[in-house]
Amino acid sequence: MYNFTYHNPTKIVFGKGTIAELKNLLSNDLKILLTYGGGSIKKNGVYDQVMTALKEHKVIEYGGIEPNPQYRTCMQAVRIVKNENIDFILSVGGGSVLDASKFIAAAALWRGDEPWDFVRKSLPLEAALPLGCVLTLPATGSESNPNAVISREETGEKLAFIDKHVFPQFAILDPETTYTLPERQVANGVVDTFVHVIEQYLTFPVNAPLQDRLAESILLTLVEEGPKALQNPLDYDTRATLMWAATLALNTLLSRGVPTDWTTHQIGHELTALHGIDHARTLAIFLPAVLKHQKKAKFKKLAQYGRRVWGLAQDDENQVVDQAIAKTIEFFKSLHVPVCLADVNLTPADVRQISASHQQRGSTLGEHGTIGPDEIAEIILLAA
Amino acid sequence: MYNFTYHNPTKIVFGKGTIAELKNLLSNDLKILLTYGGGSIKKNGVYDQVMTALKEHKVIEYGGIEPNPQYRTCMQAVRIVKNENIDFILSVGGGSVLDASKFIAAAALWRGDEPWDFVRKSLPLEAALPLGCVLTLPATGSESNPNAVISREETGEKLAFIDKHVFPQFAILDPETTYTLPERQVANGVVDTFVHVIEQYLTFPVNAPLQDRLAESILLTLVEEGPKALQNPLDYDTRATLMWAATLALNTLLSRGVPTDWTTHQIGHELTALHGIDHARTLAIFLPAVLKHQKKAKFKKLAQYGRRVWGLAQDDENQVVDQAIAKTIEFFKSLHVPVCLADVNLTPADVRQISASHQQRGSTLGEHGTIGPDEIAEIILLAA
Repeated sequence: MYNFTYHNPTKIVFGKGTIAELKNLLSNDLKILLTYGGGSIKKNGVYDQVMTALKEHKVIEYGGIEPNPQYRTCMQAVRIVKNENIDFILSVGGGSVLDASKFIAAAALWRGDEPWDFVRKSLPLEAALPLGCVLTLPATGSESNPNAVISREETGEKLAFIDKHVFPQFAILDPETTYTLPERQVANGVVDTFVHVIEQYLTFPVNAPLQDRLAESILLTLVEEGPKALQNPLDYDTRATLMWAATLALNTLLSRGVPTDWTTHQIGHELTALHGIDHARTLAIFLPAVLKHQKKAKFKKLAQYGRRVWGLAQDDENQVVDQAIAKTIEFFKSLHVPVCLADVNLTPADVRQISASHQQRGSTLGEHGTIGPDEIAEIILLAA
Repeated sequence: MYNFTYHNPTKIVFGKGTIAELKNLLSNDLKILLTYGGGSIKKNGVYDQVMTALKEHKVIEYGGIEPNPQYRTCMQAVRIVKNENIDFILSVGGGSVLDASKFIAAAALWRGDEPWDFVRKSLPLEAALPLGCVLTLPATGSESNPNAVISREETGEKLAFIDKHVFPQFAILDPETTYTLPERQVANGVVDTFVHVIEQYLTFPVNAPLQDRLAESILLTLVEEGPKALQNPLDYDTRATLMWAATLALNTLLSRGVPTDWTTHQIGHELTALHGIDHARTLAIFLPAVLKHQKKAKFKKLAQYGRRVWGLAQDDENQVVDQAIAKTIEFFKSLHVPVCLADVNLTPADVRQISASHQQRGSTLGEHGTIGPDEIAEIILLAA
């Protein structure tokens, strides 16, 4: 096991009716920027619950944040924060709104030249405005971690930044807010959560059996509960379990003391930047290809995954590993997400640029740092 | 699943050589009270590592804190804190030293009459001195929770208090500090951790499958890794896994959204208060009896526990449940701890007072609140 530090200051407020807690979480003298996305919160009652809880507060709204939030959209909000002397950012929506809010909170207090610098150059922040969230789409784990992903259309970039100053102060997780999500987003959330766990688990063993077991506990739960959410959308406990699973999958707990991969995410982000494919769907498309390509390097963990998560009992380890990858694909198919490029009407030639851009940057991916442009090209072929 | 809040502000610093981090965790201008127990830290090098890290700091020592820390011992330290204007309490040792330190931190700023009041009457604190710890014995989880247990010999009381103000600011967990523990304390730590998980898991189902899986992941790890620590005391990864397991078992995560029991702990605390039996050993003595007595109420979870943790595959659920309890006893025996009163040379008559004191207080125990004095008397007979 590796050395690590673990510090997660976010307060989780979880359950039915908890949006009303906002009035206790935010002192009355704060001037709040309420950020949101396409406006579904104004149709499903979430906005009304928020405004009722904040009826004593001064609230300014900033809506229209898109999925894969854009730098220019965030910078418009930064101007409002500065002009209006905003004290606190309240994100109401899913991971995209929250990621944008984290960027806005950081950019508002950034003292360097262009705020994009702290993303592109991974510069540390000195401070950020405090923020909190009402989460309506369990998937990204952003509600309880220091990460955000921001896109910049003009350069084709989709980049992550990580800084402890953007941990939300609190996250309100009311599973009932997820009842009105389209099936596609529910499935995406399950896949996103699943792949978050996989990227922290299917690496190489460092003799950290507890971390393995914790990861497997979330994977087993997703395999059992994910399909239920599609079959019975109004089952509260299933919604609650998926929401809590999404938080625990990426609240920095699972990766403590172990190596992590993130190849699937990095390649997936570029597919989103190039062709606008939903984030989770890019993961379902590339994960099977990454696992096939890295079968040898990940063999021991893949076998463990096959036995413990998929209950495979064959004596032949090689069969267990192949079956484990096949079961993963089957699971994604049961959630009606694409599992290869053809499923989204693309060919390897259409996404050639992913490999080329890594060539240009000279970056390598994976827990061993051995996946370069050539290997990415091979993975893309395996994902055909 | 029940509604819940989850907020754990403790920063964990985990791994080999991390005691040196103290100099970065504590600013130089703090006047520190270093609390410790019987003095083993002065023999095993831990004290030297701490003092090297704090060579720029003003440190006053307070040693001699006993296992099951006593109120009068803590109150002596409170006087020192006040006379010396101590700013920060640094606990170096196991759960007893840390629990005492939490009490000292709270009592030092208590504005009521007698500090024992906030324990006995469960009064909320307004404040506590900040504290941190270097943990040398993984067991109680106190390093990352708001709980402490304090004893008062003159009244025969051993009582818990819980308050968010006594979460440690940081906890340094260096598994190498546990190499020199006597086998008895290593075994006690595994049992304590195991029963912490059981008390949050073996209750009644509330359709919270993720919480179940998380609990099972820690139990499975303890079953596999616990005996290894006795067989191969210098295996770093085993020590590290047990240390991290002890923290996660009682850092308030497992109990979010589910009912908890604590019957075994409550009866066990009284056995310690009456006869000085090690805390973990009281748990090993009473848990099997509690499970036998509550077999019907806990039937569904006991069967799940048998299948998932012990791999029992019989068709007959009743056999699975009985076998699960038998396996638990076997596991405790493999760690060389007593599993009944006879193993510590006591009879049910010797501990009759436990039932009588509950009669007097009118308290009931268990997740259903149905375990009163008569049931406690029955459990004591089952633990003969």
